[in-house]
Amino acid sequence: MGLRIAIVGSGAIGTYYGAKLAHAGSDVHFLMRGELTEVQRDGIFVRGLGENFRVAKVNCYSSTREIGPCDLVIVAVKATSNADIVDLIPPLLRERTMLLTLQNGLGNEEFLAEHFGGGRVLGALCFIAVNRHSRTEVERSAYGHVVLGEFNRRSQLRTRDVAAEFSRANVHCAVTDDLAAERWRKLIWNIPFNGLSIVAGGIDTSAIVGDKNLRQLTLALMEEVIAAANQCGHALPCDAWQEHVKRSETMAGYKPSTLQDLEAGKPLEIEAIWGEAVRRAAAAGASMPRTEMLYGLLRKIEDRLRPQ
Amino acid sequence: MGLRIAIVGSGAIGTYYGAKLAHAGSDVHFLMRGELTEVQRDGIFVRGLGENFRVAKVNCYSSTREIGPCDLVIVAVKATSNADIVDLIPPLLRERTMLLTLQNGLGNEEFLAEHFGGGRVLGALCFIAVNRHSRTEVERSAYGHVVLGEFNRRSQLRTRDVAAEFSRANVHCAVTDDLAAERWRKLIWNIPFNGLSIVAGGIDTSAIVGDKNLRQLTLALMEEVIAAANQCGHALPCDAWQEHVKRSETMAGYKPSTLQDLEAGKPLEIEAIWGEAVRRAAAAGASMPRTEMLYGLLRKIEDRLRPQ
Repeated sequence: MGLRIAIVGSGAIGTYYGAKLAHAGSDVHFLMRGELTEVQRDGIFVRGLGENFRVAKVNCYSSTREIGPCDLVIVAVKATSNADIVDLIPPLLRERTMLLTLQNGLGNEEFLAEHFGGGRVLGALCFIAVNRHSRTEVERSAYGHVVLGEFNRRSQLRTRDVAAEFSRANVHCAVTDDLAAERWRKLIWNIPFNGLSIVAGGIDTSAIVGDKNLRQLTLALMEEVIAAANQCGHALPCDAWQEHVKRSETMAGYKPSTLQDLEAGKPLEIEAIWGEAVRRAAAAGASMPRTEMLYGLLRKIEDRLRPQ
Repeated sequence: MGLRIAIVGSGAIGTYYGAKLAHAGSDVHFLMRGELTEVQRDGIFVRGLGENFRVAKVNCYSSTREIGPCDLVIVAVKATSNADIVDLIPPLLRERTMLLTLQNGLGNEEFLAEHFGGGRVLGALCFIAVNRHSRTEVERSAYGHVVLGEFNRRSQLRTRDVAAEFSRANVHCAVTDDLAAERWRKLIWNIPFNGLSIVAGGIDTSAIVGDKNLRQLTLALMEEVIAAANQCGHALPCDAWQEHVKRSETMAGYKPSTLQDLEAGKPLEIEAIWGEAVRRAAAAGASMPRTEMLYGLLRKIEDRLRPQ
């Protein structure tokens, strides 16, 4: 018997993975806001990289109370909206409900653990380039695989159950025994690319790797992240940046999520991606001068867009 | 007897100091381009900080051949236009003609020395906030003093003659025996403020010092510049940043020249301010990670504004 699944957060990520699961026959229930009426009427369209399907009948709701208790709650809101979900989660919980965050950066598992108990919490890294074109349509332009793990524990039987649910939906899903290290491994990509795409004036990944100076800067930032991760106790190999560079060179130009957020006038996940990394590194005695610089610049750039 | 002076470059700096000298009765001759007709008709207006005068009759010319040989040629074009002045200078030269660059950054004395002989070359740092509001009007909003020195030599008798010319025009002018060190000292201000004002999204100096992160970043950049200067053999005290921070805290918000250039669609003096500093530091074995990062970002930002 499959899991009863709630999706909290219907941006590009929540919509894409929720639709994949629903399309494969999983028992998926979406919390929706502005898009509720349109999705009820039109369903969800998924396109890109050979995928082209519609989930015609989407179980969607305007409150988590209507959804009720689930086995798995997938959290896919922006990390900047974490405070808003504290009151939304409880109606979805029973004793053994798992909370799985698909959010970017560091600190999201900790946030869920603090409010709902660490024993429930899992996290996943989504290696995907996906855009939401309208309230009912998402398009994937690269990758899509997921790395899944438990918060502060090795993988469990239930971890494999969740992974199986994704695999059944044709989402490649690997299980890790060290989620925290994988979080840092993903930052090797997010810290340079998401940041430079903004501070260099709104450019995509191919413009970054295609520019001699920015490419060099990207490598220097990656080295900082790897050194900080190691200093924080997460063993990443010194050449962990190579896979990321290769990935960015071979994929089509992509606007990282933070640049997408900026252009859409949404809050930027600055604390989850840069702030928390800088703070943890500092606490462990690691120096991240270039990352700190990105952090300061991004904060000011966001600040100016959102005058109080 | 005063010096016969040519002004090459009539942006804000050339116009301001040229007008000051002419107003005090110096024998000043301006090379002008687009602004020639208007300046011939209306003269030059200087305003700001209690100054309010007009030089009604301006000696201005459309070619240096019309100006002919001078005792002192003041070079005030953007450093990015250096290549253009190579052919403009010769008609102004006789055997003992001095070339004085008021340009920003590193490498300008070297450029003049290479083309016209090092023995002619002087340089000055202009500590001034001045804007050109139209072809005939400049406004000074802070400071105005000049530090003058010889290229690769201690000050000479002639250095004092030039300083006297400025002093007579009511421009406070100090003579230095170590121009190269003063160039680096000025970079302590230009490298952080000119750069951050752009990469943080187009902000003025008060927005930089008023932001906790950017202020910290400014100090870190200043430390890099001081360390690099020392490594390059120019002894600057470790606390040389203090005067700069104090200056920026007490002056009204000001858009640094490079931000003004960006907003006006002009080329940015990236090589003179950041590029040359980074290269000289690297050659001397000094590390400037934050400065290198600014350099890479600024190059890309300019690159995007000027697609070939």
